[in-house]
Amino acid sequence: MEVEQWLHMANGDGENSYASNSRLQEKAMLETRPVLQGAVVELYRSLPARSTMVVADLGCSSGPNTLLLVSLVIGTISDHNREAEQEQRPPAAAMELQFFLNDLPGNDFNLVFRSLDRLQKLTADRRPQYYVAGMPGSFYTRLFPCRSVHLFHSSYSLMWRSKVPDELSRGAYLNEESIYIGKSTPPAVIKLYQEEYQKDLSLFLTLRFNELVCGGHMVLTFLGRKSKDMLLHGEASSMWDLLAQALLSLVLKGLVENEKLVSFNLPFYAPSVDEVKAVIEENNLFNVEHMSVFESSWDPQDDDTHDDVVLGCTSSGLNVARCIRAVVEPLIKKHFGEAILDDLFMVYASMVSKHLKKAKAKYPIITVYLKAKH
Amino acid sequence: MEVEQWLHMANGDGENSYASNSRLQEKAMLETRPVLQGAVVELYRSLPARSTMVVADLGCSSGPNTLLLVSLVIGTISDHNREAEQEQRPPAAAMELQFFLNDLPGNDFNLVFRSLDRLQKLTADRRPQYYVAGMPGSFYTRLFPCRSVHLFHSSYSLMWRSKVPDELSRGAYLNEESIYIGKSTPPAVIKLYQEEYQKDLSLFLTLRFNELVCGGHMVLTFLGRKSKDMLLHGEASSMWDLLAQALLSLVLKGLVENEKLVSFNLPFYAPSVDEVKAVIEENNLFNVEHMSVFESSWDPQDDDTHDDVVLGCTSSGLNVARCIRAVVEPLIKKHFGEAILDDLFMVYASMVSKHLKKAKAKYPIITVYLKAKH
Repeated sequence: MEVEQWLHMANGDGENSYASNSRLQEKAMLETRPVLQGAVVELYRSLPARSTMVVADLGCSSGPNTLLLVSLVIGTISDHNREAEQEQRPPAAAMELQFFLNDLPGNDFNLVFRSLDRLQKLTADRRPQYYVAGMPGSFYTRLFPCRSVHLFHSSYSLMWRSKVPDELSRGAYLNEESIYIGKSTPPAVIKLYQEEYQKDLSLFLTLRFNELVCGGHMVLTFLGRKSKDMLLHGEASSMWDLLAQALLSLVLKGLVENEKLVSFNLPFYAPSVDEVKAVIEENNLFNVEHMSVFESSWDPQDDDTHDDVVLGCTSSGLNVARCIRAVVEPLIKKHFGEAILDDLFMVYASMVSKHLKKAKAKYPIITVYLKAKH
Repeated sequence: MEVEQWLHMANGDGENSYASNSRLQEKAMLETRPVLQGAVVELYRSLPARSTMVVADLGCSSGPNTLLLVSLVIGTISDHNREAEQEQRPPAAAMELQFFLNDLPGNDFNLVFRSLDRLQKLTADRRPQYYVAGMPGSFYTRLFPCRSVHLFHSSYSLMWRSKVPDELSRGAYLNEESIYIGKSTPPAVIKLYQEEYQKDLSLFLTLRFNELVCGGHMVLTFLGRKSKDMLLHGEASSMWDLLAQALLSLVLKGLVENEKLVSFNLPFYAPSVDEVKAVIEENNLFNVEHMSVFESSWDPQDDDTHDDVVLGCTSSGLNVARCIRAVVEPLIKKHFGEAILDDLFMVYASMVSKHLKKAKAKYPIITVYLKAKH
């Protein structure tokens, strides 16, 4: 329950909010667009006339990206209809779209709902007719009736676990000063994280399978790893390791109790492609249509993923810190208190910029496109 | 657009919030319970095995009543199943429930979503499985796909209009110091209000008809009138007339500009039973299964509707003022500014208590139970 209450992006639309710091997620969405468009067109063509296509976005958060999926799906269908018209193919069956935006109940749904107005103005002359509902709840529980959803989408969410592994949250401090998988993390703790990941993903696949219509589709994008190695430069583990170091520096300054740090672990796991494949195969409910990995610079403002040099390390450090703060602020605030936030992310920014001087850091992002085996 | 942005109950759960001042609405819900339970059982029995029953609450607001419908429907089905079990009738078909809680986008959906947790704990051992989504938008627009909803419910919302009648909002000040239908309101203005009401209700019925499955049901409860007379003691018009008088007293004290008052009119109309019947007949999409009127004391703390004497007029005045403030605060704040709120509702409370000394005031509440003529 703890995790479900505090694992949400920073609310509102102020400087430190997720809404103002979610460019990474936007870029991932653009990267997966072709796969998503393919899924939408295939589903759209397969539906009977006058039916409703139901699309759910899991972990929608609140910000400029929240409505990206909605506008992408509407745009894809609208373009498809226009092409059919131009080629004088029979007109597409009149169809309606129903969207469900899902996130944990702590998400700022008010902000999302109040921004729907703008989307409606932008899409006013576009068919099909669509409806957007909010669906609060953890995607590690059932969210929808049986066989009621055609397409699930989830971006930048599935690396979050349903909880910190039980043995780690029982106060045994097995992970010492690490907050995820760091240099000092013992193999037994890595195994706990891996088991939690396997249980979570398998549960997720089973829940969604029950909610999908026959042959429904799923496009999932999340932080992953490139290889077996847990601590490669640029991967999520090194990003969290820097945050652990920043927390440790506050412990050394007497601003944070050591006990607070050693009792803190993230409900997170970034799997390798092989680890993802293994769970999907074992679970045996979905066919993998497509799977790929792309890289995204830690700095949300840096669009050049090919160049390996970071020009402005200081500003990049600040950008990364702002972005990570928007993601974990509620979790950090809950455990360490609000007072440390500004100090922590100032130290973190300087540590990140030092880290970037060695080489540009890029997260590996995994995209999987699945079809239910009904 | 104006109305849709500002017509929502006061947010949060503080002293002046709607959440803390919605006992009237709770009482109405209890009054209509038998009708609602009948509709739920009839629909439930008519559904094929393993299907999903979709229930939408229109104008759900945010507070303790928001989840009353959800728990009433779950309780009704769960009791029905238990009875069937005891009488050794064949077990009811496994069925899931999907709820949509609808209100304008300004409603505090965050508060609603964060309270779902408590409901889930209360209903943990109860079948059927259910899901609760939020659906932002005006119920004077399409909200759901065609033929997708089994039961619509709306309580204490349908007396609100989609807008102030056009001629009244164009700054002609036709209604002078009245803010709804008051003693000085000319017949032409009453006609404008009536036309807006007819247009709105007819639109509402047509929209919902398209969204309902074949033979879907609708239970609507809203403020009405007992007769043709527009200004009977206890009816909504006299309650708004006192608020207009309170505003006028602030004008006389120089705290509110007269122009502000004469340009303010409420998007509201409380129809008589005959007026409701007339629109439903003319619209010709629904059969009336049941229609009744009950009375509810203005004072939400007063549960004795038969006695005509108000014992504590001062405290009753305060109770009524708090209740009305929770309903219209966003509208008043938008038009007159925040500064007048405390003064206004203090004056209003004393005017209401003076009014109650003449006789207890009771709102007439209309309940209509409709079935679609598909």
